[in-house]
Amino acid sequence: MVADKGKKPKIGEKIVEENAEQIDGELVLSIEKLQEVQDELEKINEEASDKVLEVEQKYNEVRKPVYDKRSDIIKSIPDFWLTAFLSHPVLSDLLSEEDQKIFKHLTSLEVEDCKDVKLGYSISFNFSPNPYFEDTKLTKTFTFLDEGTTKITATSIKWKEGMGVPNGVAHDHHDHKKKGNKRCHEEDSFFCWFSGTQQKDVMDEIHDEVAEIIREDLWTNPLTYFNNEADEEDGDEGDEEENGTDDSEEDDEDQEDDDEDEGN
Amino acid sequence: MVADKGKKPKIGEKIVEENAEQIDGELVLSIEKLQEVQDELEKINEEASDKVLEVEQKYNEVRKPVYDKRSDIIKSIPDFWLTAFLSHPVLSDLLSEEDQKIFKHLTSLEVEDCKDVKLGYSISFNFSPNPYFEDTKLTKTFTFLDEGTTKITATSIKWKEGMGVPNGVAHDHHDHKKKGNKRCHEEDSFFCWFSGTQQKDVMDEIHDEVAEIIREDLWTNPLTYFNNEADEEDGDEGDEEENGTDDSEEDDEDQEDDDEDEGN
Repeated sequence: MVADKGKKPKIGEKIVEENAEQIDGELVLSIEKLQEVQDELEKINEEASDKVLEVEQKYNEVRKPVYDKRSDIIKSIPDFWLTAFLSHPVLSDLLSEEDQKIFKHLTSLEVEDCKDVKLGYSISFNFSPNPYFEDTKLTKTFTFLDEGTTKITATSIKWKEGMGVPNGVAHDHHDHKKKGNKRCHEEDSFFCWFSGTQQKDVMDEIHDEVAEIIREDLWTNPLTYFNNEADEEDGDEGDEEENGTDDSEEDDEDQEDDDEDEGN
Repeated sequence: MVADKGKKPKIGEKIVEENAEQIDGELVLSIEKLQEVQDELEKINEEASDKVLEVEQKYNEVRKPVYDKRSDIIKSIPDFWLTAFLSHPVLSDLLSEEDQKIFKHLTSLEVEDCKDVKLGYSISFNFSPNPYFEDTKLTKTFTFLDEGTTKITATSIKWKEGMGVPNGVAHDHHDHKKKGNKRCHEEDSFFCWFSGTQQKDVMDEIHDEVAEIIREDLWTNPLTYFNNEADEEDGDEGDEEENGTDDSEEDDEDQEDDDEDEGN
């Protein structure tokens, strides 16, 4: 500690000063030791994080073939993902009338984490050939950047002539009015959500919410939602325990009609 | 599917009906297979969770002796935890003037997860004998219950005569006015936060926030906060790289005063 230059230390002060120096020295030493311990803890914490990531990645690999198997089964269930979407309390609000028509062509949904789960994930929507757009696969990707933000990218949809209605934009492509950058309301339309890649605060939150719900909730167990919807339509089909009313005759007539539609 | 009782099926309808039955049968089969796959996924997810917990518990055990070592070093740094608290952007607001006097007697802080980390954790404040209360250890415990709520319990503080001021309650114990259940504002006082164990919505959030900050932030690396405060007081003591101003003379005079206080 540097002595005050203006005055000569008296004996008493000198002793206090030396004591202070010694205490300071001990203090500095303790703080240095403490810093070493914190460095040690930081290493341990990083190792723990890495191990947890390893586990998550290992189980992602275990899940993959099971998801593939699931995907095959789902292909034999007509309108599975459309039904599941419409049964989800939040996602159902996302699908406009037009979206629902387009979703009749949705063959499968895929959620995939990056091999290194820290890096991000993607959600893909696979479509059969349809009158709306050329694409058969639309993917929205979330990349976690080092600085803590998320980069969002999405397939640029090749809408067919006259299409691209879902966001409310006039669909006459001969109309040369400028359509770029029109802010559609992502909560109104699936395709608005899908195509929204700008990172504005409010939109970020809503985007992330839909993506997180699809990834954590719908993708994890879509059958619970599909079953809800199916129960409402089928009456006593399949889930006989759950329906013991006298509606069976009416339900059967409805079921016949539904089956005729599904068997097309 | 039960045939409608009122009419005999015509041939065409019969074929459609049989097709429908077959489709229904296939659909039911697909849904059953899908349910099996979901059950399989659920098992995998539980296994993954268990493995992650294992890792977390293993590293808790690795960290324990390092925390113990840290605790010993900290004992040789006067007012360490008080200083760290006062340097924390959120926790500093929690300490009233009275709390700060009481915290001069705080010798250590301990955060401990339950052996089974799923079950909860506790935060303990150890005090040297002091004029405020009889206890030498005050512990607040958070138990995670199956139904998703958290049970909060805390040591019932044995305040000494005339004490218990921090929550603003009159400290004359001969006054027989009913003092029980007085809601003190937990954001005003450490002891209000500490003693608050009721689970009301708003208070829950604030309680959890303080506890989480102590556990995840302060406990993890208190030195960063202590150093901030020390840098402000010491000037060029210890962290010479960080301070190259001409304040050294003034700071030294302050430091001398501080050291005289600390060396008591």
